[in-house]
Amino acid sequence: MKTVSFQGENGAYSQAAALELYPGAKTTPFMTFADAVEAAESEKTECAIVPVENSIAGNVSESYDILRSTSLHIIAETYHRIEHCLIGSCALDEAKTVYSHPQALAQCRSFIESQGLEKIPTYDTSGSVRMIAKMSKDTVCIASKHAAQIHNMPVIRENISDRVNNHTRFIVLAHSDKEGTKEKTKTSIIASLPHKQGSLYSLLGVFANHNINLTRIESRPNGQSSWEYDFIIDLACGPANANEVLDEASKLNVRIKNLGSYPAAVPA
Amino acid sequence: MKTVSFQGENGAYSQAAALELYPGAKTTPFMTFADAVEAAESEKTECAIVPVENSIAGNVSESYDILRSTSLHIIAETYHRIEHCLIGSCALDEAKTVYSHPQALAQCRSFIESQGLEKIPTYDTSGSVRMIAKMSKDTVCIASKHAAQIHNMPVIRENISDRVNNHTRFIVLAHSDKEGTKEKTKTSIIASLPHKQGSLYSLLGVFANHNINLTRIESRPNGQSSWEYDFIIDLACGPANANEVLDEASKLNVRIKNLGSYPAAVPA
Repeated sequence: MKTVSFQGENGAYSQAAALELYPGAKTTPFMTFADAVEAAESEKTECAIVPVENSIAGNVSESYDILRSTSLHIIAETYHRIEHCLIGSCALDEAKTVYSHPQALAQCRSFIESQGLEKIPTYDTSGSVRMIAKMSKDTVCIASKHAAQIHNMPVIRENISDRVNNHTRFIVLAHSDKEGTKEKTKTSIIASLPHKQGSLYSLLGVFANHNINLTRIESRPNGQSSWEYDFIIDLACGPANANEVLDEASKLNVRIKNLGSYPAAVPA
Repeated sequence: MKTVSFQGENGAYSQAAALELYPGAKTTPFMTFADAVEAAESEKTECAIVPVENSIAGNVSESYDILRSTSLHIIAETYHRIEHCLIGSCALDEAKTVYSHPQALAQCRSFIESQGLEKIPTYDTSGSVRMIAKMSKDTVCIASKHAAQIHNMPVIRENISDRVNNHTRFIVLAHSDKEGTKEKTKTSIIASLPHKQGSLYSLLGVFANHNINLTRIESRPNGQSSWEYDFIIDLACGPANANEVLDEASKLNVRIKNLGSYPAAVPA
């Protein structure tokens, strides 16, 4: 059985994403991203799942700090649809106060305002289900349907988000990919460049010359040195093409960490 | 008197950053970034301060969603040093449980482990000072010295972070810059590009040809359309140079939103 570590409590969107990708997997919660990844590094779990884009599960830049230092590779990615539900033990018109993560509250702002609910921010969505279960019945919360099921609490209203298409991208980190049979069509790298005019342009020129598209680029100040920047780059190519262009790129004044090649996913 | 809206509670790092930039300003807390920015848009406050890089104050990608839609301009940036303190009413060796934002707990991991403290995650750092003030004396928390002062709680130990250089970058958004006298040397833009091979490379070529350096680049899937990507780009140039290159760039298949020019700041 697949074992997956994730950040958050049972019922978190990270856990739901892991179970969507690996049905029947054993998932283990950790309080921080670093703890979840460390569990996979020390082989307490087979892999760790972490959000990297458009997340309500915490600060995504923290994930990239982990990518820079981890010995694990990216073996998969997945887009998980965030479907916020109003959860609690009262009828909709009896609800007075709503608990949730600030970003979930922000994403359901129109609904909350239409109901005139008082907002209380919490650490995470699933934890707020646990909290309101012990409170007066007119206190409700916003979390996933999965979180409601885990805590055995009724769903008052499904899909209360202002945004219909609300996906979070997760990646899976592991020492190696044991079962991978799908074609690997995406490669993630961290490129460390001298902070001087044109250095990024030269690097992107290598990819452009090989007709390789970028699906993501993000600069991060490199903690070690103020004259160097890191770029986290996702390339639309598999390991063979990646090795070829990364060889060529390494002739520039660039250090490259290859984070791994994996099958590209698309939002459902 | 300058009036500034921020996300978080009184004592938040965002508030401290605002007061460092504008000593004596009147600062007003809001629960979400969107609320803080809306206050400045509707002229309830003169400006809003929001974290954009390396933040423990919430999800930074949310700030960029706001930049995409706001009518405000960036008039300033500042780097605020994050100095975590252990706060509470007991001696260090009596502390048993520590409350704080998960990322603050992660950034003080070595200290917490050396003291054998049990970690409890909370919504924000300053709010945890308010919480532990009502709890048993062996419950402590991690927040800024400023937060300790506001809640009239003793600091047990200063500078407990594993990282010595821990800065968050904030930007200030306003309708206009009334007092700006410093030279504007940085310009932020959002460029919307068709998602096809080489389009980013062409855009960066315009900047390279004008010898303009990039200090930040970040791609974001454009919510409206799956074939278009947004790039948030910071250029090391003032408004005159920016207008010139943006005119040239607009001849490519690119839509550009100029977020504003402002004096570049450096971490203290």
